[in-house]
Amino acid sequence: MSKVLILGSIALDSLKTPFGNRKDVLGGSVSYASVSSSLFSKTNIVGVIGEDFPQEYIELLISKGINIDGLERSNGKTFKWDGYYEYDMSQAHTVDTQLNVFADFCPKIPASYLDSKFVFLANIHPSLQLNILEQLENPEFVMLDTMNLWINTTKEELQKVISKVDLMLLNDAEARQLCDTPNLVEAANRILAQGPSYVIIKKGEHGALLFTKSGEVFSAPAYPLKSIKDPTGAGDTFAGGFIGYLASCDKINLEQMKKAIIVGSALASYTAEDFSLDRLKTVTLEDLCRRYCEFEKLSCFSSLNLKKAAALAL
Amino acid sequence: MSKVLILGSIALDSLKTPFGNRKDVLGGSVSYASVSSSLFSKTNIVGVIGEDFPQEYIELLISKGINIDGLERSNGKTFKWDGYYEYDMSQAHTVDTQLNVFADFCPKIPASYLDSKFVFLANIHPSLQLNILEQLENPEFVMLDTMNLWINTTKEELQKVISKVDLMLLNDAEARQLCDTPNLVEAANRILAQGPSYVIIKKGEHGALLFTKSGEVFSAPAYPLKSIKDPTGAGDTFAGGFIGYLASCDKINLEQMKKAIIVGSALASYTAEDFSLDRLKTVTLEDLCRRYCEFEKLSCFSSLNLKKAAALAL
Repeated sequence: MSKVLILGSIALDSLKTPFGNRKDVLGGSVSYASVSSSLFSKTNIVGVIGEDFPQEYIELLISKGINIDGLERSNGKTFKWDGYYEYDMSQAHTVDTQLNVFADFCPKIPASYLDSKFVFLANIHPSLQLNILEQLENPEFVMLDTMNLWINTTKEELQKVISKVDLMLLNDAEARQLCDTPNLVEAANRILAQGPSYVIIKKGEHGALLFTKSGEVFSAPAYPLKSIKDPTGAGDTFAGGFIGYLASCDKINLEQMKKAIIVGSALASYTAEDFSLDRLKTVTLEDLCRRYCEFEKLSCFSSLNLKKAAALAL
Repeated sequence: MSKVLILGSIALDSLKTPFGNRKDVLGGSVSYASVSSSLFSKTNIVGVIGEDFPQEYIELLISKGINIDGLERSNGKTFKWDGYYEYDMSQAHTVDTQLNVFADFCPKIPASYLDSKFVFLANIHPSLQLNILEQLENPEFVMLDTMNLWINTTKEELQKVISKVDLMLLNDAEARQLCDTPNLVEAANRILAQGPSYVIIKKGEHGALLFTKSGEVFSAPAYPLKSIKDPTGAGDTFAGGFIGYLASCDKINLEQMKKAIIVGSALASYTAEDFSLDRLKTVTLEDLCRRYCEFEKLSCFSSLNLKKAAALAL
């Protein structure tokens, strides 16, 4: 089975939503993405934690079969994010960010990870993403995420990374910002012109769009949740499920990509059902398959009968 | 073939978009919806025009086989809307609205319409919608649209109409406003509790959601247009295509509803490709079928192999 490597943040999140509060709970892109990916593929992680990082969270990762050789513990405190969601739950508001040990993080890849074939460079400074990419022997498929901060402050470095990856993942606001156009189709085409074979634009409650260099487009809905308790990490859960599933496939083609997007969307919907990884960590393959079927009912429809339609017009 | 009846506005629109300007071009919900519906079903319209209404627009409707017995010409000027779209094209900004003959419009149904089975009550004062509904003999399927103005000013009357229709159609902002909740699933459920068997929430560039009383949900994408020249009338084109297609079916079930939504979405995407009805009026059933196929590629995906997925997890 191909190994998946995930680089990014591991955080202790404190947050308020209309459904309650949590303090110093497990968060960060690596946490969500690796647990999600581990459902399908052997998953390696690279990240940094501080002295205060609870052992139970490490044990959670280990219990999922995740390889933590690349999990570095540094002197100091773990990266912390403090935020809240208002009633509409569509946007995270940051109260405070403490980089702590994340500030001087210089990711190193353990020898056991060097042959990783599927790589997810989660949101982190582009120079660190590039650094990791250069340490790898021969990755088969590299997926990149980013955020508005890097588009604003380190656009040149970001574009260097973009030119080296197979798939760029970003949300709709970031796509518009990066490409300076309100039209997402136009934005995707501009990113594809910079190197990647695929672009996925995440649209939160509106689902996700896949664009390929050969001109195909796929639109996945979001699962219509009656109540979203905490959307934190849904995007990273999506990414982890996507790459974990893809790494488990015999080959990469459009049909598998579509399935990987639905797998990621299904897992993301579980994440939003509870705080932190509380729901995600208990999701089984059976849960996933059940929700995948619901996505089929939600999205698929039958063909028009052309002859019948033509007859009707007479 | 069941007859479709469409009640609403006929307008002369003047608008500016980043792609150009137009003055006094054909607009209004009835114009878009009837031309769209006429691709599939015999379509009757009820609306009012003024003395200034160009004959060529009337001839366009007649050329589509639309019955204009219920098109009333009054002394005065036709209803006029003057607006513009900014660069992002997602929201219409109104510069001026002149109700003109629309102000005193009291819709009457010609005898030849009385047996209409499928009815689309497009956006208009709820008391006029109710009035029309009471004139009809035995409608089989009634679909209702509205706007923020009526939710704000005539909520009680609107709710009376809602309780009498089979399907309520509204956009996401209107759904949130009407039901006082940011969650669209919750909003749809509240509307379903008021009477309708179906709710369709239009989300513009994000597609549309169908909710049924029996708990089913369907999510249709929007067609990813590289450039949107003029989105005016896309929602009414959707509605007309939806009800026109549905009226042409032997029976109404979820599968036909889904197909009707894709038909409506495909036609709406043509409308947005040019100003006014310039593109819509030339759309053939062949064009429609071609775009419908593109929607299939855009939305549909294959099943997960549960056994294979389970094996992968070992």
